[in-house]
Amino acid sequence: MRIVPVHLGSRSYSIKIAPGLLRRLGPECAVLKFGRRCAVITDTNVARVHGAIARRSLIRAGFEPVLTAVRAGEKAKDLKTAQDCYDRLAAHRLERGSFIVALGGGVAGDLAGFVAATYLRGIPFVQVPTTLLAQVDSSVGGKTGVNLRAGKNLVGAFYQPRLVLCDLDTLQTLPDREFRAGLAEVIKYGIIRDAAFFARLERDLDGILRRRRTALAPVIARCCEIKAEVVARDEKEGGLRSILNFGHTIGHAIENSAGYGTFLHGEAISIGQIAAARLSHAVSGLPEAELRRIVDLFRRAGLPVTISLNSRQRKKVLDAMRLDKKARDGEIKFVLARRIGRVEWGRAVPEQSIMEVLRR
Amino acid sequence: MRIVPVHLGSRSYSIKIAPGLLRRLGPECAVLKFGRRCAVITDTNVARVHGAIARRSLIRAGFEPVLTAVRAGEKAKDLKTAQDCYDRLAAHRLERGSFIVALGGGVAGDLAGFVAATYLRGIPFVQVPTTLLAQVDSSVGGKTGVNLRAGKNLVGAFYQPRLVLCDLDTLQTLPDREFRAGLAEVIKYGIIRDAAFFARLERDLDGILRRRRTALAPVIARCCEIKAEVVARDEKEGGLRSILNFGHTIGHAIENSAGYGTFLHGEAISIGQIAAARLSHAVSGLPEAELRRIVDLFRRAGLPVTISLNSRQRKKVLDAMRLDKKARDGEIKFVLARRIGRVEWGRAVPEQSIMEVLRR
Repeated sequence: MRIVPVHLGSRSYSIKIAPGLLRRLGPECAVLKFGRRCAVITDTNVARVHGAIARRSLIRAGFEPVLTAVRAGEKAKDLKTAQDCYDRLAAHRLERGSFIVALGGGVAGDLAGFVAATYLRGIPFVQVPTTLLAQVDSSVGGKTGVNLRAGKNLVGAFYQPRLVLCDLDTLQTLPDREFRAGLAEVIKYGIIRDAAFFARLERDLDGILRRRRTALAPVIARCCEIKAEVVARDEKEGGLRSILNFGHTIGHAIENSAGYGTFLHGEAISIGQIAAARLSHAVSGLPEAELRRIVDLFRRAGLPVTISLNSRQRKKVLDAMRLDKKARDGEIKFVLARRIGRVEWGRAVPEQSIMEVLRR
Repeated sequence: MRIVPVHLGSRSYSIKIAPGLLRRLGPECAVLKFGRRCAVITDTNVARVHGAIARRSLIRAGFEPVLTAVRAGEKAKDLKTAQDCYDRLAAHRLERGSFIVALGGGVAGDLAGFVAATYLRGIPFVQVPTTLLAQVDSSVGGKTGVNLRAGKNLVGAFYQPRLVLCDLDTLQTLPDREFRAGLAEVIKYGIIRDAAFFARLERDLDGILRRRRTALAPVIARCCEIKAEVVARDEKEGGLRSILNFGHTIGHAIENSAGYGTFLHGEAISIGQIAAARLSHAVSGLPEAELRRIVDLFRRAGLPVTISLNSRQRKKVLDAMRLDKKARDGEIKFVLARRIGRVEWGRAVPEQSIMEVLRR
């Protein structure tokens, strides 16, 4: 088992990475001395595959779990669904010492995390991410939230889990498209922080795509390490943490303006990262050869690297960017790469350059 | 002007108490270097009386405020109304540097505070409490939240304002019943922390009831000081902070089971404090003479001190108590007074004693 510590003072926690961890959910929670009552928040798809195992493990360890399955997909990440979860928790009489298990992908994690952050002004929660995207990204770092019609994650809280369990077995049953979408975040860590890791991905991509546990374990651990290090230095995104948003400003805007469901998050930020890399080449000195390596790796991973937009759609994307949480007085700030492994953040870019990149 | 500092490290802030502060809202916010856009969240009643003054002051100081008036009363404190507020903020393009002004009583403050705590994972907010209850209690200390059908404040966040402005002039227009309800929290501070303050209230009650500014200013300042001191020592209610809940366990339960609107919060916790004082006399050694002084002071303040419940209603109150946020594994913990000015907390009380007190 690999263990990645996240150092956040009194709110520190561990990310555990291994096969078979879901079956150990109960004993792992027992160590943390939570109250007996708990809720597993998941979606209907994940509930079918993993729900019973999670429940049984908790019951065997002496807990009294209630399982709440929200509908699968991004649309469940809204206040209406949060309200349903709260009502379930209250009906099951969860108290301050009780805890929530977030079981599933990014949607379940973000939603369950937000519910945990706000129910009784915060109760403990444990992340059990079952997708690659959630294991390397959304389950680590304490960003929780739900969507508004106006945009993704516009409502939320910074709230750290007490434990993250990444079970490598759960990745084996993922649909191919979803697994590949997760790789978009994996590649991101190489671009923003670790050129050697990027080179390793170029080398080991085939084994990763075949989902060999021996190939996956070190890759997931390294992603979590990088994210943990960045978050420990800047939990609330005052500065450094924003590098994790590489490709996300444009990516989120594409996701928003295309309507939820057209692209998977990983696909949208794949396109977003390519756009950010092109911007980086144009204004931050990213060498052409490195731009090409970036485009190649996304392409080999089976991820979309371009999108064709008409002028009305481009305008819509730009409008969505202006509402991005990272905007300030309407000015859009970017994370740009100077080299693979080295980025700068808070860079204002003229709208004209953005439009040019979107035109490609 | 009286200024009470709240010491919470990097989240420290000031409570300012004086007449005429609402007109200075704009300049006071300008000092804090917020972004230009802001939202004033208030209710329709308060908007009519104070909305224009707040708006004008903000505009004159260079801000771009949008005013959102929710319906008056406890029913506005729900997730549906929070959703409406979020949508307004997004439509007005509030960003991370933007801020929210909570203008009104406890409902506006709790709701606006929760919205501020969760919009974009938290933006700054300023409390401008316009009721006595809000000035001495809900606007200080960072508890924010909304209600569920299952109970009050079951969803929320600990989130500190950046400034609190208590304008003594706004108390002059309060309906008598609402002003008296606020006194229930004022008296509470004497019972839990300051016997001399309790004696001062016994002495000065007439001037306070006549709302003389010279009588009110030191009373409000002392309440805020006590609350600030308690919150600074125990922000997230690990222990000491729970003394602020004296009378609230039973009070909330009465409020819940009677249905919102039957009692004002202050009235319910007046009854709750009397019940807690009786329990204190029964199990914590509160002398009979002090119990009588407590009952007398609430009565002189024009507050309800008894409630008549049939056995079905008593059962309902007890059930509501079990869902209280302070319950643990179904056990109900109380704050009890040993003397006026000195309380103990976390005291488990047999249900029989609670039922006996409710039967009075």
